Amino acid sequence: MLMTNGEVSRGSAAKRPSRGDFLDPHLDPHLNRYAARTAGLRASEIRALFAVANRPEVVSLAGGMPNLTALPLEMLSEQVAQIVAEDGLTALQYASAHGLPLLREQICEVVALEGIAAHPDDVVVTVGSQMGLDLVARLFCDPGDVVVTEGPSYVGALGSFAAYQAQVVHVEMDEHGLVPEALRTALRQARESGHRVKLLYTIPNFHNPAGVTLAVERRAEIVEICRRHDVLVVEDNPYGLLGFDGRTHPALRSLDPDNVVYLGSFSKTFAPGLRVGWVLAPRAVREKLVLATESATLCPPTLNQMIVSRHLAGHDWQGQIGILREGYRERRDAMLCALERYLPGCTWTVPDGGFYVWVTVPEGVNTRALLPRAVAAGVAYASGTGFRTDGSGTRHLRLSYCYPTPERIREGVRRLASVLKSEVDLTHVFGGIDLGAVPGVDGRLTPHS
Amino acid sequence: MLMTNGEVSRGSAAKRPSRGDFLDPHLDPHLNRYAARTAGLRASEIRALFAVANRPEVVSLAGGMPNLTALPLEMLSEQVAQIVAEDGLTALQYASAHGLPLLREQICEVVALEGIAAHPDDVVVTVGSQMGLDLVARLFCDPGDVVVTEGPSYVGALGSFAAYQAQVVHVEMDEHGLVPEALRTALRQARESGHRVKLLYTIPNFHNPAGVTLAVERRAEIVEICRRHDVLVVEDNPYGLLGFDGRTHPALRSLDPDNVVYLGSFSKTFAPGLRVGWVLAPRAVREKLVLATESATLCPPTLNQMIVSRHLAGHDWQGQIGILREGYRERRDAMLCALERYLPGCTWTVPDGGFYVWVTVPEGVNTRALLPRAVAAGVAYASGTGFRTDGSGTRHLRLSYCYPTPERIREGVRRLASVLKSEVDLTHVFGGIDLGAVPGVDGRLTPHS
Repeated sequence: MLMTNGEVSRGSAAKRPSRGDFLDPHLDPHLNRYAARTAGLRASEIRALFAVANRPEVVSLAGGMPNLTALPLEMLSEQVAQIVAEDGLTALQYASAHGLPLLREQICEVVALEGIAAHPDDVVVTVGSQMGLDLVARLFCDPGDVVVTEGPSYVGALGSFAAYQAQVVHVEMDEHGLVPEALRTALRQARESGHRVKLLYTIPNFHNPAGVTLAVERRAEIVEICRRHDVLVVEDNPYGLLGFDGRTHPALRSLDPDNVVYLGSFSKTFAPGLRVGWVLAPRAVREKLVLATESATLCPPTLNQMIVSRHLAGHDWQGQIGILREGYRERRDAMLCALERYLPGCTWTVPDGGFYVWVTVPEGVNTRALLPRAVAAGVAYASGTGFRTDGSGTRHLRLSYCYPTPERIREGVRRLASVLKSEVDLTHVFGGIDLGAVPGVDGRLTPHS
Repeated sequence: MLMTNGEVSRGSAAKRPSRGDFLDPHLDPHLNRYAARTAGLRASEIRALFAVANRPEVVSLAGGMPNLTALPLEMLSEQVAQIVAEDGLTALQYASAHGLPLLREQICEVVALEGIAAHPDDVVVTVGSQMGLDLVARLFCDPGDVVVTEGPSYVGALGSFAAYQAQVVHVEMDEHGLVPEALRTALRQARESGHRVKLLYTIPNFHNPAGVTLAVERRAEIVEICRRHDVLVVEDNPYGLLGFDGRTHPALRSLDPDNVVYLGSFSKTFAPGLRVGWVLAPRAVREKLVLATESATLCPPTLNQMIVSRHLAGHDWQGQIGILREGYRERRDAMLCALERYLPGCTWTVPDGGFYVWVTVPEGVNTRALLPRAVAAGVAYASGTGFRTDGSGTRHLRLSYCYPTPERIREGVRRLASVLKSEVDLTHVFGGIDLGAVPGVDGRLTPHS
């Protein structure tokens, strides 16, 4: 399997920009000045799509924007006004790079829901968990170091690893998440080929984009494999509290506190526009994270930390998350029903929480090539290719049910079905020639439908 | 002169962490996992001091926190409440990495005050201008590349360059700012010694920490020298609107838009706790900055951008800055008077704006060694050594007048004078032996008083 053979994807990250990369070198007079790492900066397929997909006539099943309509805006407005009026001189002033002490204590209560016993000192508040990701990559990744991730994996993580010129090796998942045996093989093969594996980056719960959850019985095995191979685990868990049955899963961090860096976020459970996330890290790593934060932004925004803190202190935030969960479950159900009804010939994962369904399309269809036609037909999705660094993923796409209404979701899937049907018909007419597909890569997610 | 000979400071940045760096290697089990760049992360002397210096009995002349007491908190509170109540679904949601279009337009009006004709597309909103600095260093600095800065220079900039393993060469200033001839010499010598100089990092107005301003007649010469040597100029200008006579100086960016990256901030003119700054960059660089922002934080906080935008649109913000200027001028005057009265034997710069006075102490006094005694005597300052990467600066210290009241400033200088006097007396008794001083480095800032 391409994904489990430990073969290292030598993407664009390691390549220096050369004049040959551009049609006209005079377009960028600074071309010869950039650092080597800058060559790894590419607009992600998903983000490049946002502008088009945001037109009102298009049903966007592409983005990962949480639905905020259930937020109690009036109450929040009063709380924020009170913070500025009464504590404005604090809220509008610089604060420590570490994060506000009260908020760090409250974050310990949040992660306790997943079985983590954390000390507030070991929490570092970040500008969204994306910044946590970026700082972890910065601290650990030398150019050429290998980061193992699930295949597919979160676009923003792949971007951060590329920004520090790390190489990504994708490891197989099935419907129970990351496959331990595949991880073992990948780590062994990377080492045998002379690579230094620094990190396992994993999204154990309600995976983005795959929609699957790492089985509880695999968790101890995964952390044990990493410990034995001297690989630090980066556990990215933005969706952990959004399980549709209300249950949480034991965090990897709870199983091996000294070898797991945990990334958390209030973006999916409260408000992404505040950009408040956190890293929970072993002490020595945490100290370096605080220093790296100073260098990156001096400190996270004070007002925003106080808004989150007030929300956690003065509001039934767990009840609020329960309302969100219900909304997402309703949307997930609408999407699954529509998929059953409209999308014969495809298979997909069934998420128990989070935002995403991962779809495998019929052979001969290239989801990247198809995307412009889908948008023209009024529906946007994220092509599977954006979630991998090895060029595969053309037989997959990610559908998000987090933002649109159930009606729009149904309509979007209906439109997608029609575009797919035309494509399959065409494929049959032209004998299934697909210039973009990579043979032998099918994502290995156990199909449903 | 050590500062102008182009000698490259090979600080800690290029050094890999080794077990020998620590007393006990078992203190950090991750020691052998960090990237090479992580060795450059050190707690800055200034920040390490904050905890102690913030005790109420200590007069802190060390920090750079703006004074926020003149902010109209009631009005701001109402505006913020309105944003959340009426536009909450936007303010609390993800937005573009580029920054809100309206705010980018307004920023163009702000920089027009310094003679810059900018297009909103070329503005990238950042999480404070520290993030702009970090991203510029990330885009341009390969390990070993040279960045030329004034000597002394802003601690946070030195930290960002170290984070990307760039080497800093300090160039001499006088009371009219960076000395063009010294810049020429440094660039020539760096090239002759085989180094690639990527950036000139400069703070032209009310320099941090030196308190001086680059003479207008030198500005065209500086940008011309950089252009001829193929060096990109990074103009950091947080204090430009805080000149005590209300005048602004033409930005370097206005003189050479294609070869100057301009960093701006609302931290000193409005509210640092919001962390809203910006980069104004040539188009090709700006495109890369947007991609780098996505990788760093996805997007800057939406709410905070809307708060700044509303402030600029609905408030006499220039009048508000005028009030701030008056407050800072009063504090500067209090500090200069106190220095005249209490500090014979020292010399200092006379700032026309901004937050800082740069003091040269009598020979034989080591400002870094003296600091704990000063804090014990109830006054904190920033030792000159923190603003250089070459270990010099022991005969200098930075005093900030931005935050304390005039009374506290006077009291702080009085305490400092007493500590300095004891030290000078001791020095005389023991024959001026100073183990920490670096001979021949005196900052070359033309003395006053």
